[in-house]
Amino acid sequence: MTETKAIRGRLLWFVDDPETAGDAAHRHVEDGVIVIVDGLIEAVGEASILLPTLPADAAIVDHRPHLIMPGFIDAHLHLPQTQVIASYGAQLMEWLAKFTFVEEQKCAGPAHARKLARFFLNELLASGTTTAAIYCSVHVASVEALFTESQARNTRMIAGKVMMDRNAPAALTDTADTAYADSKALIARWHGRGRQLYAISPRFVVTSTPEQMAAAGRLAAEHPQCHVQTHINENRAEIAFANELYPEPGDYAGIYQHFGLLGARSLMGHCIHMTDREWRRFAQAGAVAVFCPTSNLFLGSGLFDWARAKAEGVPVAVATDIGGGTSYSMLRTMAEAYKVLQLQGQSLSAFAALHAITRGNAKALKLDHLVGSLEPGHEADLVVLDPAATRVMAHRLETARDLAEELFVLVTLGDERNVAATYVMGERIDADREPSPQPSTPPVLANSR
Amino acid sequence: MTETKAIRGRLLWFVDDPETAGDAAHRHVEDGVIVIVDGLIEAVGEASILLPTLPADAAIVDHRPHLIMPGFIDAHLHLPQTQVIASYGAQLMEWLAKFTFVEEQKCAGPAHARKLARFFLNELLASGTTTAAIYCSVHVASVEALFTESQARNTRMIAGKVMMDRNAPAALTDTADTAYADSKALIARWHGRGRQLYAISPRFVVTSTPEQMAAAGRLAAEHPQCHVQTHINENRAEIAFANELYPEPGDYAGIYQHFGLLGARSLMGHCIHMTDREWRRFAQAGAVAVFCPTSNLFLGSGLFDWARAKAEGVPVAVATDIGGGTSYSMLRTMAEAYKVLQLQGQSLSAFAALHAITRGNAKALKLDHLVGSLEPGHEADLVVLDPAATRVMAHRLETARDLAEELFVLVTLGDERNVAATYVMGERIDADREPSPQPSTPPVLANSR
Repeated sequence: MTETKAIRGRLLWFVDDPETAGDAAHRHVEDGVIVIVDGLIEAVGEASILLPTLPADAAIVDHRPHLIMPGFIDAHLHLPQTQVIASYGAQLMEWLAKFTFVEEQKCAGPAHARKLARFFLNELLASGTTTAAIYCSVHVASVEALFTESQARNTRMIAGKVMMDRNAPAALTDTADTAYADSKALIARWHGRGRQLYAISPRFVVTSTPEQMAAAGRLAAEHPQCHVQTHINENRAEIAFANELYPEPGDYAGIYQHFGLLGARSLMGHCIHMTDREWRRFAQAGAVAVFCPTSNLFLGSGLFDWARAKAEGVPVAVATDIGGGTSYSMLRTMAEAYKVLQLQGQSLSAFAALHAITRGNAKALKLDHLVGSLEPGHEADLVVLDPAATRVMAHRLETARDLAEELFVLVTLGDERNVAATYVMGERIDADREPSPQPSTPPVLANSR
Repeated sequence: MTETKAIRGRLLWFVDDPETAGDAAHRHVEDGVIVIVDGLIEAVGEASILLPTLPADAAIVDHRPHLIMPGFIDAHLHLPQTQVIASYGAQLMEWLAKFTFVEEQKCAGPAHARKLARFFLNELLASGTTTAAIYCSVHVASVEALFTESQARNTRMIAGKVMMDRNAPAALTDTADTAYADSKALIARWHGRGRQLYAISPRFVVTSTPEQMAAAGRLAAEHPQCHVQTHINENRAEIAFANELYPEPGDYAGIYQHFGLLGARSLMGHCIHMTDREWRRFAQAGAVAVFCPTSNLFLGSGLFDWARAKAEGVPVAVATDIGGGTSYSMLRTMAEAYKVLQLQGQSLSAFAALHAITRGNAKALKLDHLVGSLEPGHEADLVVLDPAATRVMAHRLETARDLAEELFVLVTLGDERNVAATYVMGERIDADREPSPQPSTPPVLANSR
């Protein structure tokens, strides 16, 4: 049976990039309605025009005066690190050994993995994030837990088993062969099941032997529909180690390229310390540079060069990088992105920031035909925002003169407190309640349109 | 009539600097009691020892398992900028002209100034901040409003009228003479009245003529008990302008020194771009470098060199710098301080961070005989903290192994949500309720002990 519902409020979405198209990039409807049929957006527009067209039994939820946007997208974060966040006093390599690798070992247990997956997805949804690219641990159980919980919530998530066969504790290593076989089985089991998507996930070259890198490359070649996600050029000690392990290609990006892992579906975390040649390699491959501002600041890694990436024609995504990052909120993440750009004399407008975490990330993740905007045919993943949710913000907004200023306050001071509601496939999510084990809407085939 | 009360909880305070004294610097009492008589701390220690000593009619408030610390201290922020916070896209000089100077003009009206002062003090208290060094606007009305509201709340605040007689809109300028006379009258009226303290506040050399700088120096000489607060070395364009206006002394700190404004009670905001000679001038004068991390990042000003300041023997204070800063919370401020240090390869422990916003700032402000610790005789300004106030923090704390780790989570992820209660002179404050016009405890003479 077809179910029609309408969600009413102030609508904001993007049809182009504000950094190139200016004000023509966004659509803002003061009193708008999103008509949803069976979880998909059927129509979007003025309430006065759309409301009369609805069937008599259509449910209408009125969120005015709140702002409704496409659900946020997080392009890089780690399931096993929800209890690593805010670990003290180390930069990347020490932080991995001292904190991360300790916590990740617990994910071998399915009960722990399931607990983390529930917490993690609930927190993402409470922060308005409806799609994310997620590193699970090396354990198959962690991927099963994540996808099972995501399936239960009917969320569109990209995730994969981390591949690591050296420079990590024995309990966290697989081999080239088992990583290949396990990843392949997980792809068969989960990729395109409901809304779930698989990402081939060699952690980074430092923790993979050439044999495993080659296995990852084989997986990527055999499954061109899958993403690849990994790390690159985050920290100078890491870069030195990577180039020492793989001197041949001459630079870090070249290592991934050599193994067939630098392509248009490659989500390359960090990209802080890039050489000219590496920018060119990225541009030629269409590989995505994933900017993780709170993580880069917290770990003292350095400042991502947004303007350079754009000038080089490299697609940029943005991400929390939990648990190197310090907030699940994509709003908070963009407030920190603004600061990283300011330190380099660059500016990031609120429109550019909100574009980045919706349509921008959807494009970078090649999901912009499914999510990230409010276009007919899109999956109805939505975040309802109250820009005046805190006293400080309400007080500040008294003097806001226009939409740009209001949105800049939202981006600069906002976090999960501003999320009044989150919808997944048109269903409102209560992040504090466990979902029923089966999705309420039928599975949608990935990349089918 | 003498009133005795006891506040019970987990107590944390500092008796020394953790960066030099290590673990000996802090006191942590798992089940502790603060005995308060007429607003002053009478005794602090184990509940099992102190509770039996209390008079029968003593009121006992039990905050266990929450953490009780001295109220936080903010060493630099601007009353007129509560509606400037989160203004887009400019570095210092443009930001002043485009946003700040526009909003500050509104403070000429006493009703507006009073509204801002109420909001401002309520927000500080809601964030656990009980003492702050505050710039009002150029208008006497703004200082009257701030001190009147502070008096009503019985809070210990340092504030002053900004002096500006050039390079600002006409509506925001005074003259050397009126600035001198108005400041002098305000000192007579407010300094030492109840808990209020006056700070002589030339904004910065760019907006003061040599005549006004000399007048400020005269005020400082005539009122050695008052603080001086101003700005220095925040932004390269500002520095160039300052040195162009005052070429003689050879550097920015030298300008203040020339006019007798660089002393042990001088709170010098920012100090990002300091020459060797300026560090020496500061060290010799005992002048305080005020580090404003969220502001420095938001305005892209640069990174304060904490280790250098300490190595030079320059006292360091920390501050929000609202509205260049982006949070009223000293916890959030220290999370950003950690990031600024990390980007320079320096580390800031949770103990050092919590010391900085309590005893550290009290010492820098020469108020450590009155506030900033839990010593007998101190004014009972307290903040009660719930480190597990948010889901993310509660989840993270499940794996915290010791106090240092718990506190680091508090500093890194914390904000005003973690403030369970704030006490001023032993009275619990409800930030959402307007105080009665008169303080409930008798005024205390400043610097009288």
